[in-house]
Order: sequence, then C-alpha cells, then structure tokens
Amino acid sequence: LALQSQTNPHFLFNALTTIAFKTIQYTGGPNDATRMIDHLSRILEYSLTDPEREATLADEFAHARNYVAIQEFRYRDLFRVEWELDPEASTCGAIKMLVQPLIENAIYHGLQGSDRRGTIAARCRLDGSTVSLTIADDGRGMSDERIEELRAMIEADHVGGGTIGLVNTCRRLKLRYGAAGSYLIESEPGNGTRIMLRFPAIRIGCA
Amino acid sequence: LALQSQTNPHFLFNALTTIAFKTIQYTGGPNDATRMIDHLSRILEYSLTDPEREATLADEFAHARNYVAIQEFRYRDLFRVEWELDPEASTCGAIKMLVQPLIENAIYHGLQGSDRRGTIAARCRLDGSTVSLTIADDGRGMSDERIEELRAMIEADHVGGGTIGLVNTCRRLKLRYGAAGSYLIESEPGNGTRIMLRFPAIRIGCA
Repeated sequence: LALQSQTNPHFLFNALTTIAFKTIQYTGGPNDATRMIDHLSRILEYSLTDPEREATLADEFAHARNYVAIQEFRYRDLFRVEWELDPEASTCGAIKMLVQPLIENAIYHGLQGSDRRGTIAARCRLDGSTVSLTIADDGRGMSDERIEELRAMIEADHVGGGTIGLVNTCRRLKLRYGAAGSYLIESEPGNGTRIMLRFPAIRIGCA
Repeated sequence: LALQSQTNPHFLFNALTTIAFKTIQYTGGPNDATRMIDHLSRILEYSLTDPEREATLADEFAHARNYVAIQEFRYRDLFRVEWELDPEASTCGAIKMLVQPLIENAIYHGLQGSDRRGTIAARCRLDGSTVSLTIADDGRGMSDERIEELRAMIEADHVGGGTIGLVNTCRRLKLRYGAAGSYLIESEPGNGTRIMLRFPAIRIGCA
C-alpha cells in the first residue's frame, strides 16, 4: 500500500522509549513497566514495518514470544507455552504473523474461561522439504460443526470471519503458498485444539 | 485490506493500559507516564482502526493534539502550537491523517535544528462550501527548488517520496477529492513554511 495513512512506527517506538525512561525515574531502574514496553516495542517494530517482507521462522517465534510475554503479565495464571523450534526450520521463510495469531486464538478461544491453567505447545520442525508448524492447546476444544464452520470461512471466496485469527492465518497461507500450503484443524469438545500448518521450506536466513 | 497481518489494536490498548496501571503503582497516582500512555492509546485507536472511515475535522484536530502532546514531552522547548478550528468546520468530513502528518512535517523539516522556539499554527475554517486548512510554521523554510521538487513528487504517477508526510498527504487529498481538492505550498528560506489545503465541506458530524 503506497499511500499509507498510518502513524509513523518510529514515532510509536520513540514515545514508548520516553515512557520507559519516565518509569525508570520512578523506580530507579528497570521494572515490569519497562520490560513490558520493551516487548511491546519489538511487537510494534515487527508488525508495523514491512508487513509484506518474508520473515524467518526464528523471527516468527521471537515475535510470538514477545506477544506471550505481554499476555503473561496480564493473565499470569491462565496458561503457559512450550516452545519447540527445530534449528533446521528456524532459518526457513514464513509469511509474517503466522504463529502469533494462532497462539492468540488458543488463548482466547481455547483457554480463556477455563478453571485450570492451560498449556499451549508451539512446535515447528522440518519434514523433508516441508515446514510443519503445530499450535496445540489443552483447552475447551470445538465441536465438529464449529470446525466445519471455520473451514467454510477459510475456503469461502467472499470475506467473512476475517477477524478470527485462525481463519485469517489459514487464508493468508493459501494465498501465499497456493496448493503447496495446507492446514489441518483437529479438535474435540473438552480435549483441546490442534492446528497444523504445512508449507514449503525455503531457507532464507543464516544458520 | 481484508487480510490484514497487523497486530490486533485491542491488544496494544490493553498492553498500554496494563503498563499504565503498573506505573501508577510506582508513583501512587497518575504521572507523566500515564499521561503519555493515554495520548498514545488514543493515537493508536485513531490510526489503527478503520483507516478508510471518514473522520470529522474535530477528530482530526483531536488526533493532532494527542500527537503534539507526546512530542511536547519529548521536545519540551522546541515548539508550541496555536490551534484554531472554526466550529462550523469542525463537523465537516476529512480524510483521516490529514492534519497530524503536516504538523509532523513542520516539526521535523521546519523547526528541528533551529536555535529558537518555533511556533506552528494549525487553522481550519469554512470558506463558503470549502474547507480551508492551513498549517504554518516560522522555521527554516525551503527554497523554490525544493518546493518544485515536492510538487513534482506529489504530481508524479510513480510512487516516490511517499515517506515525506507532506507529499503523502497532498497525494491522498487528490486521490480522495480529485479536482475538488487543492494544495498550496508557500515557503521561503528563513521565513517558514505554510501549507494550505482546500477541499469540499461535507457535514458529517453533529454540531
């Protein structure tokens, strides 16, 4: 989009930096506020600059970790995340904002409202020349009808359900990789949800 | 853009709110950090939600004031802004992000680096059925050659200079209002810069 009407990301980073300095004055050193600001600055940097640029899976996992760090401040006891990124896969390319929306989805649609602490597993490995990315939660799960509904939204030509992170992400996967990209949704009421994405492994980073 | 890859604006607001609560714990009440966060939250809200929605000039001035409030924290003695928004004009429609980028432009290209405190005047009035918006600074000004360069960038079919707020804003004005929108750049080295935009007055807000 050539004619952007967005706020200059540099302005946002600079404002956050000024806020962080102010709070350091209050406590005499780094504190929870500065740590949150640090994560938030990295999130803004990643999401506001060059959304079309291809990222590596290492970038994607780093971004998702910053997101989770902020959410952990907010929902201390709601969940924990197990991260597993195969070094072989970490230097492969990925569309930006692939991992974080799936984790967001797991938090809000899988775990929130549960009375026990949930676990989200974020795993990425190489399967020959294919990247296999799995985000699984042990939350409340979904019915077959709901899975079918989501699948219909993903496959629909018209835009709908675009505010649902899972739908949006699977659509972007198909748009970018065509038939070479695939998704799988496994879920059962009471037994969590497991999203698996597969797409071609293209090495773009340095090992 | 249906398939956005942006960070959920709600997440950003919520994170900023959590940071503000943390800093209130440090000082026992509202402080400079919470005030900056408040301005920043409003800026994010305005710039990240519905960029295509038509705003009123009241919205535009409120957004520019939040932007200036943050910049005043950062550059305390660099500049001051005189605001003048005709109540008649305030309920008229405007494309979003019309005023703030021109003020940003005045700060960074007009005033920064000057050894005295500059003044920016932001004025908007109705001129019959036309909105007349003027952003003027008393900073270092520009040569005729530079004005011609900017004009060429604005009128060019290809994209270039799009990172310059002034160029971007004038282009968006033309794109939105066609021949009914016009811009005027007046400047002289050492004698400040004056940008005047004119576009049809369409009342969309409540008086």
